[in-house]
Amino acid sequence: MPFIQINMLEGRTVEQKRELVKQVTKSVSSTLGIPENIVTIIIKDVPKTNFSQGGKLSIDKE
Amino acid sequence: MPFIQINMLEGRTVEQKRELVKQVTKSVSSTLGIPENIVTIIIKDVPKTNFSQGGKLSIDKE
Amino acid sequence: MPFIQINMLEGRTVEQKRELVKQVTKSVSSTLGIPENIVTIIIKDVPKTNFSQGGKLSIDKE
Amino acid sequence: MPFIQINMLEGRTVEQKRELVKQVTKSVSSTLGIPENIVTIIIKDVPKTNFSQGGKLSIDKE
Amino acid sequence: MPFIQINMLEGRTVEQKRELVKQVTKSVSSTLGIPENIVTIIIKDVPKTNFSQGGKLSIDKE
Amino acid sequence: MPFIQINMLEGRTVEQKRELVKQVTKSVSSTLGIPENIVTIIIKDVPKTNFSQGGKLSIDKE
Repeated sequence: MPFIQINMLEGRTVEQKRELVKQVTKSVSSTLGIPENIVTIIIKDVPKTNFSQGGKLSIDKE
Repeated sequence: MPFIQINMLEGRTVEQKRELVKQVTKSVSSTLGIPENIVTIIIKDVPKTNFSQGGKLSIDKE
Repeated sequence: MPFIQINMLEGRTVEQKRELVKQVTKSVSSTLGIPENIVTIIIKDVPKTNFSQGGKLSIDKE
Repeated sequence: MPFIQINMLEGRTVEQKRELVKQVTKSVSSTLGIPENIVTIIIKDVPKTNFSQGGKLSIDKE
Repeated sequence: MPFIQINMLEGRTVEQKRELVKQVTKSVSSTLGIPENIVTIIIKDVPKTNFSQGGKLSIDKE
Repeated sequence: MPFIQINMLEGRTVEQKRELVKQVTKSVSSTLGIPENIVTIIIKDVPKTNFSQGGKLSIDKE
């Protein structure tokens, strides 16, 4: 703990994920005053067929 | 918000998902009295090897 | 299954929740072609101190 | 209910998942004093590119 | 990892939760062949006003 | 999207949560190259009776 889940549209590179978890971990650690090594993150890649805002799938918005 | 996650067995078509998010968004909007465009939905497709009821995987029930 | 989680700001009445789960269950059942009795919903009431959009807590927006 | 989600690194066999849900269901049933058939489990396989501890992806630890 | 979330109706005692996490951890550890100390569990207590099966709240079933 | 959930032990002040969501939103925005206003965060406060690592509740570790 803290245990963090990040849902985001699929398509990001490993390099982006690497930087994402590094920076989010730093932010959580510094604002809560806890060591970085207890911050856990899981990324969930969400396909555009599986995300909707306002009743419309992402795949139908482009 | 509201933020909704729907876990369901994989295999549905995009057309079914399209109709699903449209109708669920309508239901949430009308019962809570909020605009449709703030209703967010993520669908999680669950493989039959990854769902269990009563200690038995779905893949073993057919 | 389907298994649904609805995160929403706290403050809704039991009557609103009652109508919400009734209508969402109907929508899921009819669009996926499955019986209503296998549709499961959990509502999570989120305090305004615990929800943020754009880096700002809900409690700071009013 | 109870409704259980298990996030774990991808790569486990169906046989391991079969045994996992069987034993976890037994544990939940016996400790809570409820029938096994109301215990529901979803397994989420997490790729090594999507899990981080201490700001570092699993893929970068080996 | 594994990271486990258990949603269950509120009302269990601390003693029941203590036994629950102990036994579930053992089951996960032995079936996956991993040490117990990396198994993490979060329990979510769900009020009867917030759980629905078949479109009906738990609070309306008794 | 991205949609983020942060589970952490209860007891943090509103000021800590305010700073937490501000900094995490900045980190997500800058590393993914997206505007801050589409980053959504829900914080879940977890009681010490409801979190376990290694089969032991947090409440039993102090």
